[in-house]
Amino acid sequence: METLDEKRYMVEETAGYAPSIGRLLSMMHYVRITTLEAAQGLTSEELDYRIGGQGNSIGCLLYHMACVEEVYQIVTFEDRNPTETEFEKLGVGLELGEKAHQIICNRDLSFYIEQLSHARARTMELFTGKDDSWLDEVSPFGQDHEANNYFRWFHVFEDEINHRGQIRLIRRHMEKNR
Amino acid sequence: METLDEKRYMVEETAGYAPSIGRLLSMMHYVRITTLEAAQGLTSEELDYRIGGQGNSIGCLLYHMACVEEVYQIVTFEDRNPTETEFEKLGVGLELGEKAHQIICNRDLSFYIEQLSHARARTMELFTGKDDSWLDEVSPFGQDHEANNYFRWFHVFEDEINHRGQIRLIRRHMEKNR
Repeated sequence: METLDEKRYMVEETAGYAPSIGRLLSMMHYVRITTLEAAQGLTSEELDYRIGGQGNSIGCLLYHMACVEEVYQIVTFEDRNPTETEFEKLGVGLELGEKAHQIICNRDLSFYIEQLSHARARTMELFTGKDDSWLDEVSPFGQDHEANNYFRWFHVFEDEINHRGQIRLIRRHMEKNR
Repeated sequence: METLDEKRYMVEETAGYAPSIGRLLSMMHYVRITTLEAAQGLTSEELDYRIGGQGNSIGCLLYHMACVEEVYQIVTFEDRNPTETEFEKLGVGLELGEKAHQIICNRDLSFYIEQLSHARARTMELFTGKDDSWLDEVSPFGQDHEANNYFRWFHVFEDEINHRGQIRLIRRHMEKNR
């Protein structure tokens, strides 16, 4: 998270990484900044707010993002599915829904930031030493499809943007209706 | 929109385009498929629905996506800001809000699909013949920043994903509350 602000609107190579991997990390970095901005200043109570008491809270969505990143680390860098123990930890965040809302609540923003930062630091480490051809490696995706590693990491930030959009909507709704 | 479904989870080069441009278009294409899926089957009335009568309708968000794409065509390929006449046409969609909701309503899904397809066909045409170094070209972005063309087109699909996330949330809310 140390990129200078003047680099904010550049998708470009990242020092220490292969060219296409660098551009990918550059996009992931921009997305993370905007996620953190979308949640900036929220209290624990606000992080648990749900529109009409339904759907996901902002806190659950932030937690989900960290879990998605972690599961894709396992899938792409270790080339395996999560173990039962790992899934016990990550499943709640991955699946969201009512169960997540019961468990992931009453936390300060710093808790979610810590989860996200921890996952990202590991991602940056894991990408070191990979070359661009790794992005093109193809393996099964679900029951019926195949995906390359570029898609999988695109999907990690694509899912984050999707939920950042929802965080912005939930926050606006909360601020208008209290 | 003719990519075969088995290519859905691949971010890869696109025939007829430079390598990095091809990957970018591949991501844009995936995002567009998921946007259309998120709105699939909605009636005119459903496209105008707003949560608690507030915020953006799904229709307005779809229209916004087409306008964003069109304005970035002007900015990046013609290297200029939109003219007053262009802004008269695009402004409502770009700015969203209450005004957009008054004007962009009572339309069938086919209207929005047509706007999106029209914009995308032009984008695909404009990218033909550009080489990857064009993505690195830097020019002013707003009052105080600079951006490269890669960022600008990343931003086009990034904004679309953001709003697709909101479309999914609005749709789920609508389906639960009627």
